[in-house]
Amino acid sequence: MEHFPDQESYEAWLDRSCRLPDGFRVSSGSLTFVPRERPTLEPYRMNMSMILLDEPTDMFAGMCTRNAIVGAPVVIARELLQGRQTQGVIVNNRISNVCAPDGIEDAHRVQEATAARIGCDPTLIFPVSTGIIGWKLPVDDMLEALPAVCGGLQRYGAREFAQGIMTTDRYPKMAHAEVGNGRILGIAKGAGMVEPDLATMLVFIMTDIRVERAKLRAVFADAVDRSFNHISIDSDQSTSDMALLLSSGAAGTADDAAFASALCEVCRTLSLQVVRNGEGTAHVIEVTVSGLSTESACRAAGKAVVNSPLIKTAIYGNDPNVGRIVGALGDHASREGIPVQVELLEIRIGGELVFARGSFRLDREKEITLSSYLSKAAMNPRVRGYPQHDLCVQISIDFGLGPAESTVWGSDLSDEYVHENADYRT
Amino acid sequence: MEHFPDQESYEAWLDRSCRLPDGFRVSSGSLTFVPRERPTLEPYRMNMSMILLDEPTDMFAGMCTRNAIVGAPVVIARELLQGRQTQGVIVNNRISNVCAPDGIEDAHRVQEATAARIGCDPTLIFPVSTGIIGWKLPVDDMLEALPAVCGGLQRYGAREFAQGIMTTDRYPKMAHAEVGNGRILGIAKGAGMVEPDLATMLVFIMTDIRVERAKLRAVFADAVDRSFNHISIDSDQSTSDMALLLSSGAAGTADDAAFASALCEVCRTLSLQVVRNGEGTAHVIEVTVSGLSTESACRAAGKAVVNSPLIKTAIYGNDPNVGRIVGALGDHASREGIPVQVELLEIRIGGELVFARGSFRLDREKEITLSSYLSKAAMNPRVRGYPQHDLCVQISIDFGLGPAESTVWGSDLSDEYVHENADYRT
Repeated sequence: MEHFPDQESYEAWLDRSCRLPDGFRVSSGSLTFVPRERPTLEPYRMNMSMILLDEPTDMFAGMCTRNAIVGAPVVIARELLQGRQTQGVIVNNRISNVCAPDGIEDAHRVQEATAARIGCDPTLIFPVSTGIIGWKLPVDDMLEALPAVCGGLQRYGAREFAQGIMTTDRYPKMAHAEVGNGRILGIAKGAGMVEPDLATMLVFIMTDIRVERAKLRAVFADAVDRSFNHISIDSDQSTSDMALLLSSGAAGTADDAAFASALCEVCRTLSLQVVRNGEGTAHVIEVTVSGLSTESACRAAGKAVVNSPLIKTAIYGNDPNVGRIVGALGDHASREGIPVQVELLEIRIGGELVFARGSFRLDREKEITLSSYLSKAAMNPRVRGYPQHDLCVQISIDFGLGPAESTVWGSDLSDEYVHENADYRT
Repeated sequence: MEHFPDQESYEAWLDRSCRLPDGFRVSSGSLTFVPRERPTLEPYRMNMSMILLDEPTDMFAGMCTRNAIVGAPVVIARELLQGRQTQGVIVNNRISNVCAPDGIEDAHRVQEATAARIGCDPTLIFPVSTGIIGWKLPVDDMLEALPAVCGGLQRYGAREFAQGIMTTDRYPKMAHAEVGNGRILGIAKGAGMVEPDLATMLVFIMTDIRVERAKLRAVFADAVDRSFNHISIDSDQSTSDMALLLSSGAAGTADDAAFASALCEVCRTLSLQVVRNGEGTAHVIEVTVSGLSTESACRAAGKAVVNSPLIKTAIYGNDPNVGRIVGALGDHASREGIPVQVELLEIRIGGELVFARGSFRLDREKEITLSSYLSKAAMNPRVRGYPQHDLCVQISIDFGLGPAESTVWGSDLSDEYVHENADYRT
């Protein structure tokens, strides 16, 4: 990714580089409403955003959260993913339509009204929601806003779509890749409640490369597993989020391996962006765990580190508190039955060896080096509109017990995270 | 527990009610030192505190963290617990002596010097440490301070001991019970890194009731499991903490059941106090989960709720964000394979039904009631010296799938927690 000194240059890059693949149009509009559930002086604002293929396609794939309690859009998406064809999505932010009374009916009303305006079968439209759990969608207000949203469909405007689906996101997140005669454009939303066991955020990927449906689904599942399933902001897997991949096929076929690799790259860039603008994120933490017998064991140990509140707060404070890393690893190892041998364990921060041969390798000079390394990787979580840089805090852990390796990404824990989440619904 | 309007009345209660059982003396002193590992302008302060039995006893029990990476004091305690007798403990705060170079040797030097001053065998003294992980104990400075600590031993002063072992604790924590002709006095330290799988904090329990060693160990294990193993502040199990029970036997025997129940009560009161003055705690959260097949399944689900950063921050903000409870439960259920039936799930906050028959039961009035319920249960985490009240936020969850039940306690997540943990070592 390029570096951006300000919001203007980032948005210019988005507009220039992130154009839609052929065969797609998007739009975004907004409305205001008064929630039934909460007394409020000022009405709430909601965006409705849309992706529409010129023609129905059978080349689509999707994955939904594994949370045992899911929102109405996930219930419906699981059905629609079995269908023969699809043509687009209608997405609202602000309310996620999870376990609200008559939530499925509400989602169907939005889906049907959208399809009616487009002139297609309702089962060709995915109704998708993100935002507050438990509240009812203001369906009447949404239907009133719908004509403007459908009327605004255009072949540019990916940035407006990406902005439209944001909730507490600090900036719109897109990634693209060129492949064959076409391209892949990915757009993601997600800032909290992010511990994908699947992609627990909204991810929309559009391509004009023609890929046969079964192959598309396999390649997408693999790309999601290699990207979104390696990030964690606050260890809470959402009830509602999903990743959808739609192909218009307008640019013909491409080399299989090239497509898979481009898709993986788009997913990985998006997932890192999701972490980078996680709620209150001041540092992105990259943890590489090696030396266990399986990739999944390494991944789980890495997540134990990026999810430890004590490690997250220390990193926020630019404090290289390696003791907490050892504490979290030992705790995880005892829960999982990993036969840790402290003599074999090696830990590095930013390349500096801090633990080896059973004890810490620390002195004042190293503490100064590490503190300054952490300070340099810091972002101001109050800066909105663009990513400030792409630096990570790199932690590497080698258990010395096996051949596997895995890298996961997470965020620190700042007072800004607490403020956002304490006040989210107000 | 009584209510205390201020620090003075709390300390008066501690001094009045929390006297030592017969056969014990305690003391506490302090020293300053410059850490080897960190450049600092002002020296750090450390307390050394001591419990000494008048005579060696074979009636003692202890439990240590299950973390796979442990501090030198835990390594040594595991050995000493196999021994025939003990006579006391020497505890320092500020540095926990975990994986520091030559940490075991350092702990032995403190243990031996203490025993030499007392005139007992070194194996009769538990050396215990709490504080920063990874740094070396300033042994020379500690040995210099030791004569004053040993010289200060007295039959009063439990409060000074409880204050001496504090790190980020906001107030000293004690609990007592009368039983037979004697008493039980418990003292605990612990404020962060608290997710006991055993008691991951320091707990010292003294009694003058005579209980045969094997029975004492069984009763203590049970009491710890029913109390400290039900609390969680930040889901991180520590590398160093332990619970020790020492009996002088000076007051003779008591009824077995009465002793067990009194011990359990002391442990439970202490564990709730540990949560109440957790780092930055503004609300104590009590989660009762019922309707699963086993107590441990209920306990795990309860911990998933009290450990969810999104639930913790919402409660901090006095926001009855029940959606996040459902989200965390669904996430936990899917990871654990609990066959949730949303139609059977019932959730109450402060007695108010908020989820039933598959959807949320919310309206504006209920939101106002719940917000005000949360506000009333709030404490100011910056107030130090005494517990402000003993109110909890009660959340009850019934899965409707089985007969078991369990209650766990945790704390909310405030910006004060972030500040304390971002700046802990500075």
